[in-house]
Amino acid sequence: MKVLQHVDKNMKGLITDLQTLIRQPSVSAKNECLEECAELVAKIMSRSGIKSEILRIGNKIPPVVYGEVKSKQNQSKTILFYNHYDVQPAEPFELWDDKPFSGKIKGNKIFGRGSSDDKGELITRIKAVESYLKVHGDVPCNVKFFVEGEEEIGSMHVEQYLKKYKNKLACDGVIWEFGYVDQKNRPIISLGMKGLLYVELSVTESIRDAHSSLAVLIKNPSWRLLEALKILRDSDGKILIKDWYKEVDPFTKKELELINSEPFDESSFKKEYGIKQFVANKKGRDVKKALVGEPTCNIAGFISGYVGPGAKTVLPANALVKIDFRLVPKMDPKKQLARLEQHLRSKGFGDVKVTMIHGEAASRTKISDPFVSQVKEAANESFGKSIISVSSAGTGPMYSFAKILAVPSISVGCTYIFSRIHSPNEFARIDLLKKTTKCICLIMDKFAS
Amino acid sequence: MKVLQHVDKNMKGLITDLQTLIRQPSVSAKNECLEECAELVAKIMSRSGIKSEILRIGNKIPPVVYGEVKSKQNQSKTILFYNHYDVQPAEPFELWDDKPFSGKIKGNKIFGRGSSDDKGELITRIKAVESYLKVHGDVPCNVKFFVEGEEEIGSMHVEQYLKKYKNKLACDGVIWEFGYVDQKNRPIISLGMKGLLYVELSVTESIRDAHSSLAVLIKNPSWRLLEALKILRDSDGKILIKDWYKEVDPFTKKELELINSEPFDESSFKKEYGIKQFVANKKGRDVKKALVGEPTCNIAGFISGYVGPGAKTVLPANALVKIDFRLVPKMDPKKQLARLEQHLRSKGFGDVKVTMIHGEAASRTKISDPFVSQVKEAANESFGKSIISVSSAGTGPMYSFAKILAVPSISVGCTYIFSRIHSPNEFARIDLLKKTTKCICLIMDKFAS
Repeated sequence: MKVLQHVDKNMKGLITDLQTLIRQPSVSAKNECLEECAELVAKIMSRSGIKSEILRIGNKIPPVVYGEVKSKQNQSKTILFYNHYDVQPAEPFELWDDKPFSGKIKGNKIFGRGSSDDKGELITRIKAVESYLKVHGDVPCNVKFFVEGEEEIGSMHVEQYLKKYKNKLACDGVIWEFGYVDQKNRPIISLGMKGLLYVELSVTESIRDAHSSLAVLIKNPSWRLLEALKILRDSDGKILIKDWYKEVDPFTKKELELINSEPFDESSFKKEYGIKQFVANKKGRDVKKALVGEPTCNIAGFISGYVGPGAKTVLPANALVKIDFRLVPKMDPKKQLARLEQHLRSKGFGDVKVTMIHGEAASRTKISDPFVSQVKEAANESFGKSIISVSSAGTGPMYSFAKILAVPSISVGCTYIFSRIHSPNEFARIDLLKKTTKCICLIMDKFAS
Repeated sequence: MKVLQHVDKNMKGLITDLQTLIRQPSVSAKNECLEECAELVAKIMSRSGIKSEILRIGNKIPPVVYGEVKSKQNQSKTILFYNHYDVQPAEPFELWDDKPFSGKIKGNKIFGRGSSDDKGELITRIKAVESYLKVHGDVPCNVKFFVEGEEEIGSMHVEQYLKKYKNKLACDGVIWEFGYVDQKNRPIISLGMKGLLYVELSVTESIRDAHSSLAVLIKNPSWRLLEALKILRDSDGKILIKDWYKEVDPFTKKELELINSEPFDESSFKKEYGIKQFVANKKGRDVKKALVGEPTCNIAGFISGYVGPGAKTVLPANALVKIDFRLVPKMDPKKQLARLEQHLRSKGFGDVKVTMIHGEAASRTKISDPFVSQVKEAANESFGKSIISVSSAGTGPMYSFAKILAVPSISVGCTYIFSRIHSPNEFARIDLLKKTTKCICLIMDKFAS
């Protein structure tokens, strides 16, 4: 295919555009330069021949970049690429080898926050469309882009955007914002996402910090928070909140077959993180089942008192913990929040303040959907092999797309599984950027036919 | 007494000198401007007629400011003032109404880190000596000053200084670096200090932060640290470490009598901190007994993961907790540390790393020492009333003074009990600065006779 040859020739442009995108910080948690980054994405799209437009639902809400190319040869099918231009905060800065937004190239790797998640993914899709337009002056099917700016803080306005622009966004299938590639260079085609309930629990014991000698009298909020946390989860990761798993279905036979056939290299995974055992000493199939379908209760952050150097003694007034609960299909974030609150109250922790920061439900595309086999064929041709996974362990607003646009969504992309997304020294692999761009070209082709 | 009248006239100078001292930051935990502050103290002493000298035991160790005035009339008795020029860190900065090192005056209060602890205390002693010299050209007894720069990080070199300069520092009694004044303007004459064991406990579960979706597999260090902390202390404050209280003596009859007679205004204390109940719901005599003689295990700080705004999900690699244990007489910090380590190991927490930051033993001066009644008389004359306490709830290197100089130490000073030392908006009360300066004059007089 001439288009795939063009992708090879076009890699220099892809890398330059990706570096430009990385060098534009866009940390949604800090509301940092989101407008600037949206405009940059629109500009890069336009240069690639994609008609771009900034969508808004309010002044203070980060815009969505919409992109569109109408096919001349085939208007009966429309594919939509869902991506995001925002990135995770880069902290802790001191653990980066280079500046977090450097876009520095070392061998086969491009470093920087967002290099894989999700600016790398986005650029493969833009460049796939560009190659079609350059070679054929046309695309095999209609193409749409929906590039949001709040994915890393929970995509809280995606549903509003989807509702307001439902007709504009109408399509027949969604290629999700990312896809992992494993250690053997096999793309993992993921058919689902876990949900998320993100909360802050805080305890305030007094109206001001006190001299720590007063610890004989004044309660310490960390001790109290510790007690509350102990009733949420056991040391094997099982969540102790009443009825937490009530609606969770067991895996279907088909799902279990897929999970069984999915490879997972435990030893290289353990090596990457320098660990000897998994949580609850999980092994073999249990590891894979957990990644696909186990809800979690994770302490994303804990802060109280003085945490600088030296021996400052203080009795802090407040303590705060940030928790992300990953959810699986049929778990409703609001219902789970109510269960958490009720559990704390019923166990005597009514003094622990619960603040919901974000919630979204899990979603899974049916294994039998024809879109699944089209994507698999394309991935096999580009990478030589591929793996289908029932669900990613991560979270995204797939549920909203399924509900409002009523179309299947599938994850496939260029994110190497150890590319340190959300962590210092995040990188993208250049070889995978190329293969994935070709894979996206092939998906459009197969999807159109 | 003419000297006391001079103190009244000299208040403007006292306030100006205190402001100058506050405006010179000297955070020992950050090794910030300690040399500069020591030089400033020496300069202020010299201006007041005190012969000052910078003592050193090494290049990198904060110096001690030594001050001396030889009495012409009476060289048979020497009083030593122990103070410190370093201060606690001012964090959290955002909770200060003015800049932390402002020295701003509002009505009867001077605000700023160190205004009470310990620059306010120090200035009352310097000014008491100055008044004697101005009025009589002499002091009633020999006077020495020992002003160190590491009190807030545990006075770890005081013992070395005391040993090296044992002869220079020889004296008959020590007035300790601070003394509280309660809500009814009664100075609390404290005869002892608790000890301190300051440790950091940390857990590392992997070699790098991970995407929090991996919480199904990778252990979270906060959860582990929580489990370890739960075996250290029960919710009533009782320390669960094996043999923790083994050497602790019960109170003597005399001590109990003093504790019984000591007033303590529970309701205004609770109001100041906005709390309804004390730890373990303590009341009456138990409150006072706890302040004097209960060991504590206090979480001074806890940090892990992302603690900024928004919903960043991360599975942190490390978690750290800073703990201060207050100790009572006969508890040896090193022995207690070994007990802590052994306790963690024996309960299966050998993976929790324990780092000792500082340790010092508790000390108490005998109630029957004549120095006690001299100080009490002086305090009664200056304040109209006073209270004797068996021990402060706080910590200081009193044990080293007792051991090396073999003299009694007594705390008496100007620190209003709710002056927010170690916390934002620390202040000193001008009325108490004046009364305390007079009290120090009277102590010198009574001590000499």
